[in-house]
Amino acid sequence: MKLRIAIVGYGNLGRGVECAVNAAEDMELVALFTRRDPKTIKTASGVPVFSVVDAIAKKDDIDVLILCGGSANDLPEQTPFFADHFNVIDSFDTHAKIPEHFENVDKKSRTAKKIAVISCGWDPGMFSINRLYGQAILPDGRDYTFWGKGVSQGHSDAIRRIDGVLDARQYTIPVENALLRVRGGENPELTTREKHTRECFVVAKEGADLKKIENEIVTMPNYFADYDTTVHFITKEELERDHTGIPHGGRVFRCGKTNGGKNSHIIEYSLKLDSNPEFTASVLVASARAAARMNAEGLCGAKTIFDIPPSYLHPASGEELRKTLL
Amino acid sequence: MKLRIAIVGYGNLGRGVECAVNAAEDMELVALFTRRDPKTIKTASGVPVFSVVDAIAKKDDIDVLILCGGSANDLPEQTPFFADHFNVIDSFDTHAKIPEHFENVDKKSRTAKKIAVISCGWDPGMFSINRLYGQAILPDGRDYTFWGKGVSQGHSDAIRRIDGVLDARQYTIPVENALLRVRGGENPELTTREKHTRECFVVAKEGADLKKIENEIVTMPNYFADYDTTVHFITKEELERDHTGIPHGGRVFRCGKTNGGKNSHIIEYSLKLDSNPEFTASVLVASARAAARMNAEGLCGAKTIFDIPPSYLHPASGEELRKTLL
Repeated sequence: MKLRIAIVGYGNLGRGVECAVNAAEDMELVALFTRRDPKTIKTASGVPVFSVVDAIAKKDDIDVLILCGGSANDLPEQTPFFADHFNVIDSFDTHAKIPEHFENVDKKSRTAKKIAVISCGWDPGMFSINRLYGQAILPDGRDYTFWGKGVSQGHSDAIRRIDGVLDARQYTIPVENALLRVRGGENPELTTREKHTRECFVVAKEGADLKKIENEIVTMPNYFADYDTTVHFITKEELERDHTGIPHGGRVFRCGKTNGGKNSHIIEYSLKLDSNPEFTASVLVASARAAARMNAEGLCGAKTIFDIPPSYLHPASGEELRKTLL
Repeated sequence: MKLRIAIVGYGNLGRGVECAVNAAEDMELVALFTRRDPKTIKTASGVPVFSVVDAIAKKDDIDVLILCGGSANDLPEQTPFFADHFNVIDSFDTHAKIPEHFENVDKKSRTAKKIAVISCGWDPGMFSINRLYGQAILPDGRDYTFWGKGVSQGHSDAIRRIDGVLDARQYTIPVENALLRVRGGENPELTTREKHTRECFVVAKEGADLKKIENEIVTMPNYFADYDTTVHFITKEELERDHTGIPHGGRVFRCGKTNGGKNSHIIEYSLKLDSNPEFTASVLVASARAAARMNAEGLCGAKTIFDIPPSYLHPASGEELRKTLL
């Protein structure tokens, strides 16, 4: 019998999950829940659409619910709420608030005897696992994480909030020389500015003061002030022609030594993603498989990708995996 | 209380484990067991050395036994034998025989209510995990594994068995153009010859027929015939000066598509290792930590790295890992 998956939320991530579930042979997508009027939603796959208020009534027909809301406003409420009734998966990515979110979700899912896998995706997610494996294997060493080249949604939004800006797209770009130094085993101490640059494509309102906008961007604390930032003003048409994709990626390094420092080892994990939300969605869907398996074994509570044996993510049996992939 | 680790076998791998255990703050190395006369062994760290026949008598003083023998002759016997008494770790790497080895070890460790983690290292090991994660996340895709540049012990040994050869070192080298095509998202079909070349450094006996040796190498079935192979004859002094290291490494790729083929994603995991045995040893030691934890939870039987939740490999608590690495 196939795993019955449902989605809450139909933005970019929800659409990505829809694709990924339909690409998984051991899963079927049984419902999409939305806060909008269900009649206004046209899904790519034709999955039935319901109001989110009807979700709990359908809980016996759903094995895992994948929550596709945002980390700022949706997931802190939604994940604990649904964890009380379903096995759930989310992509909560506000790093500093993960411990609090974990505790809130854990209480609910333990009471409900369900599994909740939080903070899935690639960072947090696959990058986190690689930081963990790297440290566990090479305790005498250093981690480096580089992001990009890719679109940062948060930084693009920050530019859009500036007076006089119609639209904007921000790319995070790793500094090539820093990458080379790390890959070369130099173990450099790198400042924020030495690791990444930021490139912004901005559509301004007619008559806006471009110098003022540029200055507001490059001096914006937390977002841009600590980076070398380039600002390009372009037309709405150029933005739509050249910057509609949502690519991203990056690299995690572990540079470590063994034998009292005599020998060096470099582990590098790299992602080059055409679509950030579709890749994130693919991690969520593999995690849904693991959640269902863990729950079927009687496990419950909040989990992260750190707690999931890799084999639980893959559809094949342990025997098959040992034979073909080990 | 620290984890009490013991080693069986004191070759390159055993020496690597000795270093790695001593570098782990939560472990202590309590014994080294050898088939040689213990009096003849001088260890780097001064750990007590015993005859391997005395190992079982000391089982109550040892939490995990790390087996550092070879896959061809030692581990098929040793791992099931010791799994009957200890939590054990091995690096069994004869890929085709892993299922049989797993079954043999599983029976013993279940009866003994112990954990046996087999086939740890980097391939099998970290490369295998990356093949698994890649397939689980991107089911519509292809895997590629490249090895090198690095010393292949098996191929070096094969050359040494040729008449007229005194010593030899063989390097496996990935073909740069193949790497570029894979990394570029081309998803090429690659033959054995297109993926790797082999470079051999050979010390011949005085008066040996060099043409004949070279021909025997490059036409050797399984080992060299399917590759472009270069042979260099060098002196014993040159071999000792330039080729005593045991570097290795390689790359695992998963190139996959989402949204019905619309978007491409490339995952690349790469290792650059100054010392193959010391890195392998570091994976064995992290796995020993996981084995002890799994056994303390009441689990038993044979496991592979596929079955180990990543958090079990790292000394920090789940709470700490979520806070600092997720």
